[in-house]
Amino acid sequence: MSSNVALMRTAKAANHPNRGYIIPIGGAEDRTENPVILRRFVELCGGSNARIAIIPTASSLTDTGDLYKSVFSSLGVDPCRISILAFATRDDCRKRRYLKVLDRADGVFITGGDQVRLVEMLSATQVAAKMLSRNANGMHIAGTSAGASAMSAQMIASGKTGITPRVGIVELAAGLGLVDKVVIDQHFSQRVRLGRLLMAVAALKTQAGIGLDENTAAIIAPNDTLEVVGSGTVTIIAPSNLRIGGAASADDVVNVTGIHMHILVAGDMYDLRSIT
Amino acid sequence: MSSNVALMRTAKAANHPNRGYIIPIGGAEDRTENPVILRRFVELCGGSNARIAIIPTASSLTDTGDLYKSVFSSLGVDPCRISILAFATRDDCRKRRYLKVLDRADGVFITGGDQVRLVEMLSATQVAAKMLSRNANGMHIAGTSAGASAMSAQMIASGKTGITPRVGIVELAAGLGLVDKVVIDQHFSQRVRLGRLLMAVAALKTQAGIGLDENTAAIIAPNDTLEVVGSGTVTIIAPSNLRIGGAASADDVVNVTGIHMHILVAGDMYDLRSIT
Repeated sequence: MSSNVALMRTAKAANHPNRGYIIPIGGAEDRTENPVILRRFVELCGGSNARIAIIPTASSLTDTGDLYKSVFSSLGVDPCRISILAFATRDDCRKRRYLKVLDRADGVFITGGDQVRLVEMLSATQVAAKMLSRNANGMHIAGTSAGASAMSAQMIASGKTGITPRVGIVELAAGLGLVDKVVIDQHFSQRVRLGRLLMAVAALKTQAGIGLDENTAAIIAPNDTLEVVGSGTVTIIAPSNLRIGGAASADDVVNVTGIHMHILVAGDMYDLRSIT
Repeated sequence: MSSNVALMRTAKAANHPNRGYIIPIGGAEDRTENPVILRRFVELCGGSNARIAIIPTASSLTDTGDLYKSVFSSLGVDPCRISILAFATRDDCRKRRYLKVLDRADGVFITGGDQVRLVEMLSATQVAAKMLSRNANGMHIAGTSAGASAMSAQMIASGKTGITPRVGIVELAAGLGLVDKVVIDQHFSQRVRLGRLLMAVAALKTQAGIGLDENTAAIIAPNDTLEVVGSGTVTIIAPSNLRIGGAASADDVVNVTGIHMHILVAGDMYDLRSIT
């Protein structure tokens, strides 16, 4: 365990003193042996008394919601307080029953799957608006894999593998906009996604990039400091000075200069307010 | 094609006005279709009149020297002026016949194979000393794959794949010391070697890292400016501000912060004198 106080600026007044935590997870989080990430989420939400809403919409599997319900139960949450919001159509996002669950939830957990499917179902619905407003007033939101990607305002919809930036390596699309100023990628080291994250940051200019390894989370506190939890790394690509040049050669490789990057491990902190 | 003048500092007096070019290549360079790298080396050495010495010692194959001899012949070099210095023992490195070839060569080409094998044969021999002194006086030296790695004073001897810095991901060993202040890695994107290069730069502190893709070369001029040639990228990891923390978790991932990195493509320039 190490701590990067050098990366932390002196504390200033929090921008969102009442906001809930935002917890993007890089996918494949440990759910049984040593579930440090999910346990942290459950504790933030109130432990055994937590009211947790699971959104399994990104997943095309029918049992994803039940799977996480049993995981959160095994972590001590009262099963009666766990709801599965299985939005199957955009009309579902207007159902009062679902909206009432979100009104009372202490935390929302967004599963993995396909972030495009998730956003197509939720974006510009009452559910998406309620998640934003409730988070601003203290409800915590965690999302894994596709659920982490979708948190960005401009999200990585899809892309190709590799450490080299290339023309066409990444597709961006509107996301849910739960986090400001950062574009999030997941399964980062395992699927070698540095090239596509660099291209996303280069395209979005003012945004930073966060690359989350599997079983690794960025716990973003209300004051926008980020803490790393889990077994892998969180790569931060700061946008300052990053420049993108033209493509060269038939391989469509692109030059990207002025990359400023931090690779963080469990216990490390990073102040997202340092992103200009 | 793009050019990064922003990365170039204003010209100062060259440190090594008479030095030959140094050309590390990331392996798998094109030898037939569009051999831009090898053609550039041949042109620097004098074209059809070039005297070229091939050192195939890194390779365990018996025909590596002959292969490059036929490549350089096909690029117009008089075959009678191409010598293969097949050092098979350290005693071979004292043979006057070989040393005389190096006295007259316009350029030396070091093949791929195993950089440890190469350095064990050549280091602290008259051959290694002569390569340094002749390069200081104008002889050009190119090396591909293992031949590029061996150019560093502290070279990457071996390592593991992945973008994540980890404990034990890289083994360093003494190299031939043809280049100052940089540690070189090859097959960089293709074999996903960012993690091991970051660990090498972190360990060597004052040195920069150069990661060369396949079919891509860094043409280092006598004034220590570097030009990228070939179809892939050259990744420069500047050492300034890079800090390494402790290892966290059972996965042995390590935090590395303050990484300053440039990914360059054909036509881009970088001033190695900017490395403090």
